[in-house]
Amino acid sequence: MVDIATRVWNHKWKIDPIVRSLIDTDFYKLLMCQSVFRNKRGTRVTFSLINRSKHVPLAKLIDEGELREQLDHIRSLSLSRGESTWLRGNTFYGKRQMFRPDFMEWFENLRLPPYHLERKGDQYELTFEGNWPEVMLWEIPALAVLMELRGRSVLNRMGKFELQVLYARAMTRVWEKIENMRDIPNLSIADFGTRRRHSYLWQDWCVQAMREGLGGAFTGTSNCKIAMTRELEAIGTNAHELPMVYAALAKTDAELAQAPYDVLSDWHEEHEGNLRIILPDTFGTKGFLDNAPDWLAGWTGIRVDSGDPVIAAETAIDWWKARGEDPSTKRIIFSDGLDVEKIRALHSRFASQVNVSFGWGTLLTNDFRKLVPDDKLAPFSLVCKAVKANGVPTVKLSDNPNKAMGPADEIARYKRVFGVGEQVAQEVIV
Amino acid sequence: MVDIATRVWNHKWKIDPIVRSLIDTDFYKLLMCQSVFRNKRGTRVTFSLINRSKHVPLAKLIDEGELREQLDHIRSLSLSRGESTWLRGNTFYGKRQMFRPDFMEWFENLRLPPYHLERKGDQYELTFEGNWPEVMLWEIPALAVLMELRGRSVLNRMGKFELQVLYARAMTRVWEKIENMRDIPNLSIADFGTRRRHSYLWQDWCVQAMREGLGGAFTGTSNCKIAMTRELEAIGTNAHELPMVYAALAKTDAELAQAPYDVLSDWHEEHEGNLRIILPDTFGTKGFLDNAPDWLAGWTGIRVDSGDPVIAAETAIDWWKARGEDPSTKRIIFSDGLDVEKIRALHSRFASQVNVSFGWGTLLTNDFRKLVPDDKLAPFSLVCKAVKANGVPTVKLSDNPNKAMGPADEIARYKRVFGVGEQVAQEVIV
Repeated sequence: MVDIATRVWNHKWKIDPIVRSLIDTDFYKLLMCQSVFRNKRGTRVTFSLINRSKHVPLAKLIDEGELREQLDHIRSLSLSRGESTWLRGNTFYGKRQMFRPDFMEWFENLRLPPYHLERKGDQYELTFEGNWPEVMLWEIPALAVLMELRGRSVLNRMGKFELQVLYARAMTRVWEKIENMRDIPNLSIADFGTRRRHSYLWQDWCVQAMREGLGGAFTGTSNCKIAMTRELEAIGTNAHELPMVYAALAKTDAELAQAPYDVLSDWHEEHEGNLRIILPDTFGTKGFLDNAPDWLAGWTGIRVDSGDPVIAAETAIDWWKARGEDPSTKRIIFSDGLDVEKIRALHSRFASQVNVSFGWGTLLTNDFRKLVPDDKLAPFSLVCKAVKANGVPTVKLSDNPNKAMGPADEIARYKRVFGVGEQVAQEVIV
Repeated sequence: MVDIATRVWNHKWKIDPIVRSLIDTDFYKLLMCQSVFRNKRGTRVTFSLINRSKHVPLAKLIDEGELREQLDHIRSLSLSRGESTWLRGNTFYGKRQMFRPDFMEWFENLRLPPYHLERKGDQYELTFEGNWPEVMLWEIPALAVLMELRGRSVLNRMGKFELQVLYARAMTRVWEKIENMRDIPNLSIADFGTRRRHSYLWQDWCVQAMREGLGGAFTGTSNCKIAMTRELEAIGTNAHELPMVYAALAKTDAELAQAPYDVLSDWHEEHEGNLRIILPDTFGTKGFLDNAPDWLAGWTGIRVDSGDPVIAAETAIDWWKARGEDPSTKRIIFSDGLDVEKIRALHSRFASQVNVSFGWGTLLTNDFRKLVPDDKLAPFSLVCKAVKANGVPTVKLSDNPNKAMGPADEIARYKRVFGVGEQVAQEVIV
């Protein structure tokens, strides 16, 4: 029987919303948001969309009106009662009441601030300005909207049947990747694919595939909404925006050199155990570790997110040894441009020395490469970053010069302050 | 919204019927049924299930109670008003009123006769006895039931997710086959896969895939129900059971030698054009053509269903030439164990000399090879044949000794009468 009411309801939709919940975002955003809410609430920041893949002409592919509708829809969202209950009542990383009452009260009343959208040639300029805790929550939904609208521009021209075969192929591919990883002993892998996913439904499918195929080796998802609805662990710690903004707020070179450690000092007060994960590459891993205070060596692990992951992992292991720490008690989380082969290689290289985890992103939730003509569904490198804090431009160096951002003179200054020399460039795919 | 009524309706089902319509059968069965109804109505026949793949222990895989439920359900079926309307009102092979009023009246009142089912070791003995026009209609649904119950015995143990990936893989495979054939010029191909299909829904999907992927090169389906619901051509002419039963009814060797031509003489009176397709291999193609009356050379084409298809096609072309016919006006329909490679090879070999068509069966509608452990969904060779006519055993020789059936002494007699010498054995996969 046809469910007439559902049919009628469906054709009343003005749009098919891409983001339907404020917690359809990465868990680390909420952790960072609470930290910022506590420590830097009044900071004014600007976040900006940056399409590193200039060959993808977003403004030609995506109708501006549709983009505005999707972004406006996100601005209409607020935390639902069930979402709030989940955030307040759930255990995250083994801890109850991760989110404190004052933060939750603020979050429950939050609407995302306005956006600024302008077409510039074949690209969009999309920026968000305001108080840091509000503006930062735009990053993930904005990326998800752009990724999915770009996908829809291709899917809209396909027949019902072609679509079915497209998804059959994509499902087969994901499942074969998962089957390929089943024999990795003590695998520990999570979904980190929200921001560049093909779509929400697809990410949700991939997460269920991971759970079904990998069982306990699948540790959870970075996506809070999916973690909630699928009753999985929400995964994530912190990201580059914290040291980037802290650094931009520094008044002197000495304060600048200290800024990344200030971030982790604030974090240290708030979190313990598996949430004490160092992200060392914002201004170069080597210098960060060399100059790090000893209490940081006591942290649980390191996340490797740029550069050659083998070098980064070896640097971390050497650093722990030099500080008298036993690497076998530590954890390294790889999260940069992973796919099955790289996961297998890194696991087999390091699993005997440290605890190894993987945060698998784009090539889990958006591997539609070669599935349509001209590869028009291939993932591409889109980011949304803090570019200014209290009027001062931010800088990111990372361990890959192709991922560096900021004004040239500021990059030079940061390189000097953080003692970053020659870097090896790595291709940025996603 | 949940459609509560549908959910409740679904859990009222006692069984999930495999065959839900009397016209969920091959079109040629109905054409032959009308011919038999007209010419041999009172003939008593026995049809019997024959599992040529002894390594598939049907009685271990399929519960006898479930099998009986499915067969009993088929006995409860009768032609629906819409089905009757379609048979009476539709154009088949360009002809209106293909099915005459007296036949339709009989068909509208038909219920299938009883079956006899007995477990013999790991196999089932399943036979149908009665008047030919009724009993013959058991063949296709009986095969479809056994094929699908065997499949369900595997699918029942799979998780919801594994099932989804299984079908994603199978869909991808079918679609890749179809894409592979798109560049064949003047391709003409039909679905002949009812009897050994994976399931009705799957066959229906494959048919839609063919239509979507091949457009006009896909000429239709042998399945009447799918032809009706998808508004496609119903395809098919005649099969071995006609000469087999006619031959068994022969009183003398002279009558036996004449029997296959009597079949086509009856057919000649009834049909013209693309329905005048010779199936010459029942008792050996070579002898059949050598001794054929000249009026048969005027028929539209030949169906090649056993033996080496290249030899059979060349034999037919030589025969037409010898009888003064122009092969380029003739049609050869290949229908034995086809898959894409064989289709491409036969097409490229013969398309310049004759009109070539393909009746693609099992490897279209049941190619689940290697998709589950131990290949337990691989298609296998199951047939349901007329084994007796008015108490006399039937014989089939075909152009492949591995497909021969009947008592040894009768086979020897038929070989003598039809002048069949040494034959080359071909592996029977499906």
